[in-house]
Amino acid sequence: MGDTVKRLAILGSTGSIGQQTLEVVRALPHRFQIVGLAAGQNTDLLARQINEFKPDFVYHQEKENPLPEVNADYELLSLEEIAFHPHVDTVVIATSGKAGLGATLAAVKSGKNIALANKESLVMAGEIIIGEAKLSGARILPVDSEHSAIWQCLKGEEQPPARLILTASGGPFHGYTPAQLEKVTVEQALKHPSWQMGKKVTIDSATLMNKGLEIIEAHWLFDMSVDDISVLIHPQSIIHSMVEFADGSVKAQLSYPDMRLPIQYALSYPEHLPNPQFRKLDWSDIKNLTFEQPDFDTFPCPKLAIEAIKKGGTYPAVLCAADEVAVELFLSRRIDFTDIAGLVEQVLTEHKATTHPTLDEILEADTWARDKVGQLTDGDSPWKY
Amino acid sequence: MGDTVKRLAILGSTGSIGQQTLEVVRALPHRFQIVGLAAGQNTDLLARQINEFKPDFVYHQEKENPLPEVNADYELLSLEEIAFHPHVDTVVIATSGKAGLGATLAAVKSGKNIALANKESLVMAGEIIIGEAKLSGARILPVDSEHSAIWQCLKGEEQPPARLILTASGGPFHGYTPAQLEKVTVEQALKHPSWQMGKKVTIDSATLMNKGLEIIEAHWLFDMSVDDISVLIHPQSIIHSMVEFADGSVKAQLSYPDMRLPIQYALSYPEHLPNPQFRKLDWSDIKNLTFEQPDFDTFPCPKLAIEAIKKGGTYPAVLCAADEVAVELFLSRRIDFTDIAGLVEQVLTEHKATTHPTLDEILEADTWARDKVGQLTDGDSPWKY
Repeated sequence: MGDTVKRLAILGSTGSIGQQTLEVVRALPHRFQIVGLAAGQNTDLLARQINEFKPDFVYHQEKENPLPEVNADYELLSLEEIAFHPHVDTVVIATSGKAGLGATLAAVKSGKNIALANKESLVMAGEIIIGEAKLSGARILPVDSEHSAIWQCLKGEEQPPARLILTASGGPFHGYTPAQLEKVTVEQALKHPSWQMGKKVTIDSATLMNKGLEIIEAHWLFDMSVDDISVLIHPQSIIHSMVEFADGSVKAQLSYPDMRLPIQYALSYPEHLPNPQFRKLDWSDIKNLTFEQPDFDTFPCPKLAIEAIKKGGTYPAVLCAADEVAVELFLSRRIDFTDIAGLVEQVLTEHKATTHPTLDEILEADTWARDKVGQLTDGDSPWKY
Repeated sequence: MGDTVKRLAILGSTGSIGQQTLEVVRALPHRFQIVGLAAGQNTDLLARQINEFKPDFVYHQEKENPLPEVNADYELLSLEEIAFHPHVDTVVIATSGKAGLGATLAAVKSGKNIALANKESLVMAGEIIIGEAKLSGARILPVDSEHSAIWQCLKGEEQPPARLILTASGGPFHGYTPAQLEKVTVEQALKHPSWQMGKKVTIDSATLMNKGLEIIEAHWLFDMSVDDISVLIHPQSIIHSMVEFADGSVKAQLSYPDMRLPIQYALSYPEHLPNPQFRKLDWSDIKNLTFEQPDFDTFPCPKLAIEAIKKGGTYPAVLCAADEVAVELFLSRRIDFTDIAGLVEQVLTEHKATTHPTLDEILEADTWARDKVGQLTDGDSPWKY
């Protein structure tokens, strides 16, 4: 492998993953070049990124909110045009929530390497995305620390693994009783003990919905039955996940929690590149790695996710959409923390699913679920506050 | 990979590793067949093994101690003849101590797969063995749990690793002060907290010489500078070793301590085969993995080993031989536990090494070192008790 420069397009460059991807590029300019940037509302930051990285192509969502002064020439393209552009080697999908689905599908159809940080797209439309990737030859490179860990542990292994063990920090409320959970505030929920992440992911991490979505992602990425995917609480977030093989041998991937490492590995794969930004594990400092079984009675979201993927069809899309709206309602202090799981469960219960849905049917189910959360939290509803 | 049956020859079938190899074969008779058995003094056990596994070829060392009645036809061959026989696919080197060196060399020259459990041969003659393996195309498959772990973590990786981290249980005397160490008995030293092993290896594990020999082995097996090999105390013996890559990502291999797992993996490589004998990691039972830095002042053997391999030539062979005799003297209660390291150090100090030694020069250095331990512990010597 020579020192070729990989040309990257980042869809969602102003979010947490997008910014950390740019930090990696900043550290390794001889290996990575930014040719495309796409962002939503944060036009100030996008403009600064354009000035620094001088991409050839830009997409920005807010037409009515024009970019501030930019000292660079670039072409304004659509997300699809960026994903398909022959100058792009790897597409980084760093958008969060439902917004990532269109971008992921466009990128997957391009047949390129896709560094996928967006959880929702695989959860909502895993069957379609994996099917399209097989057709186009696109390679989906996981960016989530857990899936990156599994992917690293599977490197060179030709047999399917016997079990995947997703580790979970447990979030800020690990060990809380149901009664304690009811009283937690937005500020407490946003204080994650080990990871720096976006707000949506941080709340999902506190409810353990994050782990539920990751089980569904792992199911699609590694073609594993959800019955063979376990969750293990590991508060130090040093072991990012594990794989058990047929003989009982287990491989684990470890590092300090730093999203830039899995981001970089997705970009540099199959190489490991030295990066002075990364702090190497200091074993004179690590005395203790602890493990506990998760409490899915107090934190029911993973159970809801497992149920949704087992039922299949549009259920996972409904889970995802209901969770997204419920998290927004919690962040705007309109519902309690424990209402997130309650609302998602209620919406799933009321859903009438379509099997092997088309993309349009998935988007319809998404809209239906969002409206349903709205109805459940409006008017005289018991969810209304 | 079809369900082909691998034909095995076990050199050292009556020792701890040999017997555990036969347990693996017993569990997976559709995958492994014993075609050759070789053993030293334990003719009763060898005879029982012959009756059970019906090998085509047998070697036994004790001509004056004939085999008891055996209900099987077999050909008596030399170790070399067994290793070179075209009916043998994989040679398991399960002899301990210096006795393994000749067998290892014969096996390596055959160009076959060598499942190598004998530490001493690589320590004494690593340069010659690795050189012969390159010439013959023999593949050396590590059986030691630590080296198997590293090998598993390196699977599929094309870049050299940045660091190898050998884990060590710390043995029965972990945390002891020098004063406490002086008083330990043979019985205490033979009680290993986590592994069932032969006597020599168990004592080496208590002095940490085991880790010193493993550093030298890892140096040869993985072509790593000893400066890039660390030792980490991990009393639970669940993580069997780790590999750090250029980006700081670390992979670890885990299982309960059971030598049959690395033995089987060396035989089944690259496959992981299910074996009902193996207990899978139960994460509801594993609460805590702990780590400590090793104390090479109280347990100086690893420092002696590192010094020996850095000086090179015949020094590692002298280290190995002096340790083997010193351990025997300790087991026969003629020296104290702490004298083992003291004697090895003294013998190394007095040694005048040959660089790039031939096999004969290595064997001469071995004899010299054994004699030297004898002199140091005889007559008016301060080592005499």
